[in-house]
Amino acid sequence: MRLVETDPIFDRSDRYFLGRSERFHKGLRRMRRLVELRSEYNLSAHDMITLQQASDEYVPIYLHMSMFIPTLEGQASDEQQAKWLTAALQFRILGCYAQTELGHGSNLSGLETTATLDRSTDEWILHSPHLSSAKFWIGALGKTATHAIVVAKLIIDGRDHGAHPFFVPLRSLEDHKVFPGIVIHDIGPKVGANTMDNGFMMFKQYRIPRENMLMRYARVSRDGVYTKPIHDKLAYGAMTYVRVGLVVESAELLSRACTIATRYLAVRRQGPVTVPNAREPQVLDHLMVQYRVLPRIAQTYALRFTGMWMYSMYDKLMQQLAQNNVNMLADVHAYSSGLKSYTTTISMEGIEDLRKCMGGHGYSMFSGIPDFYATALPTTTYEGENYLLTQQTAKYLLKQIELVRQGRSDALSTTTDYLRQLVEPSLFAQQRWSVQSARDLDDANLVLAVYAHRAARVIRELEAAKQEDGVAWHDLQVESARVSRAHCQYIIAQCIAYYLASKSFARLSPATQTVMRRLMTLYHLYTLERDMGDFTEDGYVSAMQVALIRRELRSLLRAIRPDAVGLAESYGWPDFLLNSALGSSDGRAYERMVEHLQREPLNNGEMDDGVIRSYRECLRPLIRGEVGQWTPPETGRSSKL
Amino acid sequence: MRLVETDPIFDRSDRYFLGRSERFHKGLRRMRRLVELRSEYNLSAHDMITLQQASDEYVPIYLHMSMFIPTLEGQASDEQQAKWLTAALQFRILGCYAQTELGHGSNLSGLETTATLDRSTDEWILHSPHLSSAKFWIGALGKTATHAIVVAKLIIDGRDHGAHPFFVPLRSLEDHKVFPGIVIHDIGPKVGANTMDNGFMMFKQYRIPRENMLMRYARVSRDGVYTKPIHDKLAYGAMTYVRVGLVVESAELLSRACTIATRYLAVRRQGPVTVPNAREPQVLDHLMVQYRVLPRIAQTYALRFTGMWMYSMYDKLMQQLAQNNVNMLADVHAYSSGLKSYTTTISMEGIEDLRKCMGGHGYSMFSGIPDFYATALPTTTYEGENYLLTQQTAKYLLKQIELVRQGRSDALSTTTDYLRQLVEPSLFAQQRWSVQSARDLDDANLVLAVYAHRAARVIRELEAAKQEDGVAWHDLQVESARVSRAHCQYIIAQCIAYYLASKSFARLSPATQTVMRRLMTLYHLYTLERDMGDFTEDGYVSAMQVALIRRELRSLLRAIRPDAVGLAESYGWPDFLLNSALGSSDGRAYERMVEHLQREPLNNGEMDDGVIRSYRECLRPLIRGEVGQWTPPETGRSSKL
Repeated sequence: MRLVETDPIFDRSDRYFLGRSERFHKGLRRMRRLVELRSEYNLSAHDMITLQQASDEYVPIYLHMSMFIPTLEGQASDEQQAKWLTAALQFRILGCYAQTELGHGSNLSGLETTATLDRSTDEWILHSPHLSSAKFWIGALGKTATHAIVVAKLIIDGRDHGAHPFFVPLRSLEDHKVFPGIVIHDIGPKVGANTMDNGFMMFKQYRIPRENMLMRYARVSRDGVYTKPIHDKLAYGAMTYVRVGLVVESAELLSRACTIATRYLAVRRQGPVTVPNAREPQVLDHLMVQYRVLPRIAQTYALRFTGMWMYSMYDKLMQQLAQNNVNMLADVHAYSSGLKSYTTTISMEGIEDLRKCMGGHGYSMFSGIPDFYATALPTTTYEGENYLLTQQTAKYLLKQIELVRQGRSDALSTTTDYLRQLVEPSLFAQQRWSVQSARDLDDANLVLAVYAHRAARVIRELEAAKQEDGVAWHDLQVESARVSRAHCQYIIAQCIAYYLASKSFARLSPATQTVMRRLMTLYHLYTLERDMGDFTEDGYVSAMQVALIRRELRSLLRAIRPDAVGLAESYGWPDFLLNSALGSSDGRAYERMVEHLQREPLNNGEMDDGVIRSYRECLRPLIRGEVGQWTPPETGRSSKL
Repeated sequence: MRLVETDPIFDRSDRYFLGRSERFHKGLRRMRRLVELRSEYNLSAHDMITLQQASDEYVPIYLHMSMFIPTLEGQASDEQQAKWLTAALQFRILGCYAQTELGHGSNLSGLETTATLDRSTDEWILHSPHLSSAKFWIGALGKTATHAIVVAKLIIDGRDHGAHPFFVPLRSLEDHKVFPGIVIHDIGPKVGANTMDNGFMMFKQYRIPRENMLMRYARVSRDGVYTKPIHDKLAYGAMTYVRVGLVVESAELLSRACTIATRYLAVRRQGPVTVPNAREPQVLDHLMVQYRVLPRIAQTYALRFTGMWMYSMYDKLMQQLAQNNVNMLADVHAYSSGLKSYTTTISMEGIEDLRKCMGGHGYSMFSGIPDFYATALPTTTYEGENYLLTQQTAKYLLKQIELVRQGRSDALSTTTDYLRQLVEPSLFAQQRWSVQSARDLDDANLVLAVYAHRAARVIRELEAAKQEDGVAWHDLQVESARVSRAHCQYIIAQCIAYYLASKSFARLSPATQTVMRRLMTLYHLYTLERDMGDFTEDGYVSAMQVALIRRELRSLLRAIRPDAVGLAESYGWPDFLLNSALGSSDGRAYERMVEHLQREPLNNGEMDDGVIRSYRECLRPLIRGEVGQWTPPETGRSSKL
């Protein structure tokens, strides 16, 4: 943080005023500086990523670091690495990862770019047969990358061996010109992430040496013989790792919005004065505002606990995979798909609602939320579209329920053990939630029970729907999404329970423990209330219990209110990074709004005395009646212009 | 449409590339042209607004036309109108409406700007005592307006008579300079609406003549005597009118996103090929996508029918008010508050989900959704913050329930007549929904019954909560929001029923009637499913019925799918206005994406051969190893950069 805070090249005071081109070029200067800092401070890859994140803006080499190099390390053979990796590590070549096409994203098998072997010259011929085959959305491709990992269908003698990665030079290292046979464009403005040059690329019979196919796993020999890859189970792990990262990131992004909104809503005062001579109440004292803000703070903690647990599970998985033990794989894949989907969805929804909670001022860029939100939005789409991902989770759960049907409940995983309840359907149908008082709502077992019952029930319903005549798997996408959501809410509840039973929780002061327990109960009551239909539908939760949940939710909001600002600030976001007039740590929200707006270019340097340059051309002729002469009809008061 | 489509000044091909300043100045040229067109074609006020909307971008005079002139017409005395109105109608003065302050929006009584009478000079002294008193968000104030209606506390001899409107000159008609005693700035970039110069303004003992107070209702005489306004009930009508407009607008905006998304999702193909040699399925054939899109189309119709009914009620109200009959006033105020809140909320939520539905490409500005969405977003905040508004509705419903308690059910309004059910609490508690088959779900009476029961129940619960010890009105904001939502859903259902029983519906072809009935049933099932907890909580809707709803919903999606594109297109949005590569009427989504991106400034005119201007400064030094020299550690394969 100190490096970016003190170096003027990372200055962000003009962030909200720059158009796309200026912001992009400024990003490139920042990118160069990042590389210089690496050499000055001998930074590790991890440090570099951290530094880039502290500058809070994408630079094109982000994808070089996070996708291009890891792919070389993972998929290139040792000889290939010896040839390319040092140059990549030194940024003497700048890479990107070109997989998605204009016509295909999620369905990898639909990719159309071909790499056809020409035996006579020992080369691959890369080609884009249709417009829909164009590589699209490729970060760093548009203007900066010199090389790409291109994913293309590998074809030998007319036989298609499926998608494989190739190392492809794009631009001359001499003058940066795109090589003949390739067409590249930047894809233009996006909702956010506009410092990234996402690119479009088409190949026209473009040739690269046979050795440029990444050959750590699959191989093609000089005489054109294709050798299938030995399956690399560790690759599954990598996908999981990225998804865990997104769960943690969704907690962080939500907390960033919580910090800004909570601070501002504690500063702003609005509403009827009920006590004579008192000031207006803080907006954060309105119950509706508490209802919109405090559960979001609770979610940041719940998601963080979930991310921590997922990282520990990931480590365990990788240890097992290294020993060729694949027991955990399907389970981890299932919940990490669902949790990526669920957590990014509620995080993005939460950030936007926190912005709206700030009323009119939340709509100003100076509120500090819109800019990072716009850039974070695609987390709901990339690394698996959020609705598609839920099908992975649901498919796995249907397999698990089969274990129950086969009398093999003992083979259920820890996260799906609740399906055991379905062994006795009639008992299951008679189950009722045994909560009777507010105190019961703090009981970890009772809390887990309600999520477990609901998850088991919706999975059983999906199973039943699947068995209906004429129903295909793709008819059940809506039900699958419901099932995945239910399973994920159960796992998050489990993670909260693990945390509250952990040594690190035990080390907290009693007062902090009380606050944290309250916050987690608030998380649960809010979650239950939002999906209430799922819990009451079969009578498991009664009308009396619903009323209890609503009443306790209200009383918890009041109880947590005094700690709201502290809880919202606990992530420790520095002011530099928040870049928010309304959410700065000193609480000078209005003063900072005015400081910010004085930097607006329309307020500066246009003409003398703040008169805009269009005045002579556009305003003066109207005001002087030189254009658009028109006489109002003589009808007295009229709403005719 | 033809006027804006053919005049090059309204060209929109560069819309998504312009930075704020360029876009603002371009808007001013468009504004001047609008005024010229008024004179060329002798356009009415209504035509002018239509023309501005067809150009699909705010211009500063939008507020002159929609706020400044109507306020003069409504609040200025006849003499004042004679003095100012013609100049305003001719755009020789340019006005804005300055009410909101940096510290106060919703709570009007908290406004701090003062207008103090100086008897000796017969002047008002306008003053902003604190930074929080600064006028803020005032559209057209920042750079363009010459005059403002300023809302300020009227003070005579130390006595505060509350907020009143004043006619205030801001800038010289000679050179457009801001007069001494006033400080004005543009407030800087916002999420959207950046062609509007929203402004900041502070007064420092700024003097205007006493006659500049708008004196149609309240008056102050030469000797400083304040005369209270005769209450103008028609003013309530105006507020209602604006809210009805927002309901209709929320239907239109949602339909705009539906048109774009539905077209694109019918063009794009993705997913497993189930029939040999077939193409991939259209994305719109995925059930999950249908579930996200088709109910949104249904909502556009439901909201439109609601808006049409609201306009007819508004006319009725105005006729009655003209005869001093205020019977309808409270009812109309209650539902128009709630419906403005409910419809803008679901419209904005729907637009953003439709964008996400389009996957990665939805994130491109060329999708055509992000730009208009960003500008439409504040509809959830202005004309009454959406959550605050629900309290108005809830308060009214509590008054209506009192009628029931007093045995005066006959005095209930048409929209609240359902509260009559509460006369017999024990009968009410035993009510069960009598739906037994899919066919019953089309029965208008049964559909109304489920909304009516639920609305009555949550209102009764709010009443009970209010009677608990120690519970104040502001503790019930969450419950109020729930009550308002329930009431609004009932009214929308009523409006749908009115429409399906109307003559205009009867005139449709039988085939169209079938489609429309299906669509409205889809609307209901989707609405019920989303709020299921509210309907099942007290057992009114059974688990069997929930299962039925879900199954029928799925089957309706399949039934409506063939008509989806036709229904989504029925608003007839012209391509010019949509400005969407993905949603254009010819379905050439990918071709148009490429046409659009070729206009990106980074792809043009930076240097020869598409090499960006930062290459020499930022990229070449890295590629040539001139900066940031660094040697990777000798550890072989490593993820150290």
